[in-house]
Amino acid sequence: MSTYDLTRPHEPPDELAAAMTPEEVRLACRAGSFHRPTRGAALGWVHCNLVVLDRRHAYDFLLYCQRNRRACPVLEVTDPGVAEPVELAPGCDLRTDLARYAVFERGARREDRSEIINLWTRDSVAFLIGSGISFDGALERAGVQTKRFRWIVNTGIETVAAGPFSGRLVATMRWLTPTEAIIATEVSARFPLTHGAPIHIGDPDQIGADLHKPVLGEPVSRPPDGYIPVFWACGVTPHNAALNARLDLLITHAPAHGLPVDLPTDRLAVI
Amino acid sequence: MSTYDLTRPHEPPDELAAAMTPEEVRLACRAGSFHRPTRGAALGWVHCNLVVLDRRHAYDFLLYCQRNRRACPVLEVTDPGVAEPVELAPGCDLRTDLARYAVFERGARREDRSEIINLWTRDSVAFLIGSGISFDGALERAGVQTKRFRWIVNTGIETVAAGPFSGRLVATMRWLTPTEAIIATEVSARFPLTHGAPIHIGDPDQIGADLHKPVLGEPVSRPPDGYIPVFWACGVTPHNAALNARLDLLITHAPAHGLPVDLPTDRLAVI
Repeated sequence: MSTYDLTRPHEPPDELAAAMTPEEVRLACRAGSFHRPTRGAALGWVHCNLVVLDRRHAYDFLLYCQRNRRACPVLEVTDPGVAEPVELAPGCDLRTDLARYAVFERGARREDRSEIINLWTRDSVAFLIGSGISFDGALERAGVQTKRFRWIVNTGIETVAAGPFSGRLVATMRWLTPTEAIIATEVSARFPLTHGAPIHIGDPDQIGADLHKPVLGEPVSRPPDGYIPVFWACGVTPHNAALNARLDLLITHAPAHGLPVDLPTDRLAVI
Repeated sequence: MSTYDLTRPHEPPDELAAAMTPEEVRLACRAGSFHRPTRGAALGWVHCNLVVLDRRHAYDFLLYCQRNRRACPVLEVTDPGVAEPVELAPGCDLRTDLARYAVFERGARREDRSEIINLWTRDSVAFLIGSGISFDGALERAGVQTKRFRWIVNTGIETVAAGPFSGRLVATMRWLTPTEAIIATEVSARFPLTHGAPIHIGDPDQIGADLHKPVLGEPVSRPPDGYIPVFWACGVTPHNAALNARLDLLITHAPAHGLPVDLPTDRLAVI
């Protein structure tokens, strides 16, 4: 337990947020006292991206994730109507325990919500997908800074479709020194369930990465001198695929507002 | 290409089988000139376990695999009615390219078949699941013998159910020297998509492993002096779960007669 007081009306500052347990973050979200991005909070714990859709699309979406496992490592799927991820976060209520939810109707984004109680039905199925944020702690311990030079960019790489789900791969790009690039490759490779090793290193054009219109981050033209761009498959990929499917209703976490769960990232390391 | 002659009427001997490419094995099966177990054939290539079932059970089975990924690492799922695994073995026909198929009706095993053309329908979905045989080559290269002391045993560990699929974990057990046990743990951990690291080492009773009635191998009471039993999650687990579901029709590869695919095992290594 950290010293974070759930009744505290203000946002936890960085250091306090980092020391919070995943459950503390979730309960603070439920209580309406945590609105900041989850990046940097509950450091060292697995963070998940959320996708909620109707059971009639669940097979095609799970298959899409299987076919594109680098971008979509599924860590848990709830049974229809069950809002508790019993394996990864017992006691969690997925309808209230994220800081912010994005809601899409037929592919159009509606206003964000702080809870989705009224949108949840007995046919709702939730997918928890490992987030690359999860290995930030391991990168930091190995001497790779994770706070600077991070973008999310579209690429030209087509994913493998399943049913109505398709689209291009979205990548997380970090600019690293050559030494950091090697260390980051070694470290992240140990975590295949949170995107694993990079998918590309060097020239953005080789994967059609669009640095001029990044999904997240300032538009750029070239890396600063002495840095190499390194690209990881990104959990925004399945969001995009679900959006492309233009489902009647799709709910995801709002960007940067994911779900920390009760699993230390180091437990997901394969070696 | 090896020097294996597809028109050859007899079985390839061990050394020739090991040097065959996956495609050569598959075409020899199709031609009816390969009946031996695939273990030891196409060494260094990924081998897959096969499960074929009706599309109406596909979601629950894929979910069962996700929930028990150590035992059921899904490498490819075909679209309904499509008998070609386009990602892993282009040109392969899953109805003819395995040496031997096991057929189950409502949980009862029928006579094995050398092809399943008449059982395949437009609703058939095939699951290719990574087999632990795949890392035998990597173990041998690291100095761990893979030919002796290998059993398949039931354990008392309950898997996580999904729909009608449930049951206990089946394990591959090898008796290794302490040094081999450590090396085998290091090596297999690099291959999470073919069962990865061991699930247990030492006392069989701790996981309820039944050595008296093994699924494969001679009944035993205790390891030979100087050896430690080491247990891996086994691809027979999803077969058992599918059997427990008592589906109208379930087709799998016959034990030890899997499908080698066009992916070098070393390409699946995560680090």
